Amino acid sequence: MKSELVVILALIFLTTTNAPAADETIDTRARGIATLDIIVGDDSQRRLEALTDIAPELRDWITDFAYGEVVSRPALDLRSRELATVAALTAMGNAPSQLKAHINGALNAGVSATEVVEVIMQMAVYAGFPASLNGISAAREVFKKRGITLGKETQ
Amino acid sequence: MKSELVVILALIFLTTTNAPAADETIDTRARGIATLDIIVGDDSQRRLEALTDIAPELRDWITDFAYGEVVSRPALDLRSRELATVAALTAMGNAPSQLKAHINGALNAGVSATEVVEVIMQMAVYAGFPASLNGISAAREVFKKRGITLGKETQ
Amino acid sequence: MKSELVVILALIFLTTTNAPAADETIDTRARGIATLDIIVGDDSQRRLEALTDIAPELRDWITDFAYGEVVSRPALDLRSRELATVAALTAMGNAPSQLKAHINGALNAGVSATEVVEVIMQMAVYAGFPASLNGISAAREVFKKRGITLGKETQ
Amino acid sequence: MKSELVVILALIFLTTTNAPAADETIDTRARGIATLDIIVGDDSQRRLEALTDIAPELRDWITDFAYGEVVSRPALDLRSRELATVAALTAMGNAPSQLKAHINGALNAGVSATEVVEVIMQMAVYAGFPASLNGISAAREVFKKRGITLGKETQ
Amino acid sequence: MKSELVVILALIFLTTTNAPAADETIDTRARGIATLDIIVGDDSQRRLEALTDIAPELRDWITDFAYGEVVSRPALDLRSRELATVAALTAMGNAPSQLKAHINGALNAGVSATEVVEVIMQMAVYAGFPASLNGISAAREVFKKRGITLGKETQ
Amino acid sequence: MKSELVVILALIFLTTTNAPAADETIDTRARGIATLDIIVGDDSQRRLEALTDIAPELRDWITDFAYGEVVSRPALDLRSRELATVAALTAMGNAPSQLKAHINGALNAGVSATEVVEVIMQMAVYAGFPASLNGISAAREVFKKRGITLGKETQ
Repeated sequence: MKSELVVILALIFLTTTNAPAADETIDTRARGIATLDIIVGDDSQRRLEALTDIAPELRDWITDFAYGEVVSRPALDLRSRELATVAALTAMGNAPSQLKAHINGALNAGVSATEVVEVIMQMAVYAGFPASLNGISAAREVFKKRGITLGKETQ
Repeated sequence: MKSELVVILALIFLTTTNAPAADETIDTRARGIATLDIIVGDDSQRRLEALTDIAPELRDWITDFAYGEVVSRPALDLRSRELATVAALTAMGNAPSQLKAHINGALNAGVSATEVVEVIMQMAVYAGFPASLNGISAAREVFKKRGITLGKETQ
Repeated sequence: MKSELVVILALIFLTTTNAPAADETIDTRARGIATLDIIVGDDSQRRLEALTDIAPELRDWITDFAYGEVVSRPALDLRSRELATVAALTAMGNAPSQLKAHINGALNAGVSATEVVEVIMQMAVYAGFPASLNGISAAREVFKKRGITLGKETQ
Repeated sequence: MKSELVVILALIFLTTTNAPAADETIDTRARGIATLDIIVGDDSQRRLEALTDIAPELRDWITDFAYGEVVSRPALDLRSRELATVAALTAMGNAPSQLKAHINGALNAGVSATEVVEVIMQMAVYAGFPASLNGISAAREVFKKRGITLGKETQ
Repeated sequence: MKSELVVILALIFLTTTNAPAADETIDTRARGIATLDIIVGDDSQRRLEALTDIAPELRDWITDFAYGEVVSRPALDLRSRELATVAALTAMGNAPSQLKAHINGALNAGVSATEVVEVIMQMAVYAGFPASLNGISAAREVFKKRGITLGKETQ
Repeated sequence: MKSELVVILALIFLTTTNAPAADETIDTRARGIATLDIIVGDDSQRRLEALTDIAPELRDWITDFAYGEVVSRPALDLRSRELATVAALTAMGNAPSQLKAHINGALNAGVSATEVVEVIMQMAVYAGFPASLNGISAAREVFKKRGITLGKETQ
């Protein structure tokens, strides 16, 4: 049910991205918050604040640029984008807390837990087994918090 | 047209992956070659041979393990897998010729050129602009060889 | 002479960065172009276009976000920022052409060739000798094109 | 004593690796378990299970491919392989728990604690001092658990 | 006040670096300890000892080579060097405890807390937002321990 | 024949490394040149000069610190050290020309071409197939220049 809602929400805000230049700044902010609320869960701004207390501009850049400008672009669906981000962060292997955030984000955007595991396991081929094993540890932690048992998931 | 064929081919070989243990080795090889033929283009084995002349086992591992065992798993479609691989190799930034191979692979697996560009641009957020710019250079080279002009692609 | 001009130009545009929200988008673009013109040399937009033909948004993001929003912030001078960028790209070691661009940028922003060499050599301590040696190769190439002979530079 | 046993065990299973194709799958599994039991300590399969509960195929790939196919190849001795792995994981610096596992593995395969320290210190040259210092922290932890005091080891 | 002292100390020992070859080893050691005492805080040798108990040569190399030979070179000021090191370690993202040490070092060498935050935020452009966010976490921790509140700092 | 000479030379200079402090600087230089001459081939200093023309101190640091101080330490043999370096540079994947230099160095230090290939192939497990494939490309180039045909080598 949740993922259907996500898809509908995504369709709504993604089809409205070609706003005229005048209100662009405001739209970018709104689009960023909407995208982040899907990925991070509602109240994304409050969570970002805690991360960027000493660097408030970083919160704005993440909202406006990263999510309002880049990740919300309609030419690729949010589900594919989050799957790609999980792949990249698993392969790079040096940002475990961001990886966990995006495993959550992928699940929130409609990726199944099984697909998350698949893409992390696949990284063994491109970035080696240690990167893949650490990705699986991150997924295990996220799944536990969400009460997901593989094989019985109901996304 | 080509991508439809790919989807049909993919469905055929992906639904036959739960073979019994006895013939597993042979099946793994066949599945690996079939997957590689989609990604690399037919005759994948001959091309791999050129890369691994002094390390023939590496060709077998790529065929049997990487593609026969991992990438051909049915729980995630080949299109998503190739998109994830393009994301990861762009982010890592230290394997430009493999990145080009997988941009080709993504296009062969049904990803549109626009989606390839989207996922590479998205990596600016997670791995920085230099990684993203180098990914775009790799895509430009691949698109040129294939005669792809963005906006006019017909995958 | 050139570096003095740079400093004056930098002072002018950097003291005007607290523009009100209404014209923010336009100001960000102008600030980005001004900063890029210093770093890349005039006509930065034309050069970026060549790099981002198939990804024109990437050019806008680099102009507006990377340089208009981040690198042009007055709280740290452009000279220090370019030195830091040369350090980071040398240490990461996977974006040689961007490293060369920023060695040029550092020189354009008032860093002396000797200081460029110093910070690259220092990276041997933090990222190992191979990264440092490759950084020196990048610097050699840039210095050659600019006709810089170490010990005789006149920045 | 232990390391002599290891050498004998290693010789036994390594000289039997050219089994005919028919039983290859079974042999690969057995070879993988034997190699992992030396590196990880006996009961390697139970430990792997804990790491890969949500990704059981990863355990099989590590057993069959990584150790049964690659690491157990007779053309390079297990001692050299583990030393090389400690070097690589120290240099990459993004898999600290796997590094500790392979410091243990190196000691189990007959590398002396002094040699482990030497190869980690050497990485200061190729990957920088931070990578080397973090490698030494990993070694300190492993040595403590095993009761190893440098200078007094009796491998 | 402290940073003025640092500048004076730095000037003293940096102007004496061209000692004749005979006493070079002794001078290098003294220069290394002086530089480390500025960066790490006095008693740098005792702290290094704790890190390198099982690898005492590593302590000597850090003192003599890294700081006595490289970082103390007069051709680039210590403040710029520490800023460059913070940038590089933020971008590499795989040595968080060394990053914290050098955020401390940068503050000790006269970089303001605001400038530290600026250079870490700038790395979002060159190494991606996850690297930058993790750098900000490191800075937050260091600032807390030192009682630094941004906007009210008095370096 | 050559490798026997190497072993003898190595034994000679490695047993003389505990020189008293007075002549330490001179000994370090001599030890560095001797080690580099084995790894790089005679005339290592001339070759380093070409690499470090604009950074002559880098040549001295490589000679005195990297090879005179670290790599020449007797507690681990040069053959193991070069094998470890080939592993680390293959895994890091961002210094292809240094990797080629150390594949040469490994062969010069008595590692067989087969062992070089083995350790590079092994990195597929720890750093992924792209890193391993690029390592094999580096080895192919080195072997070609030296006229080495695998299976027929005569180290």
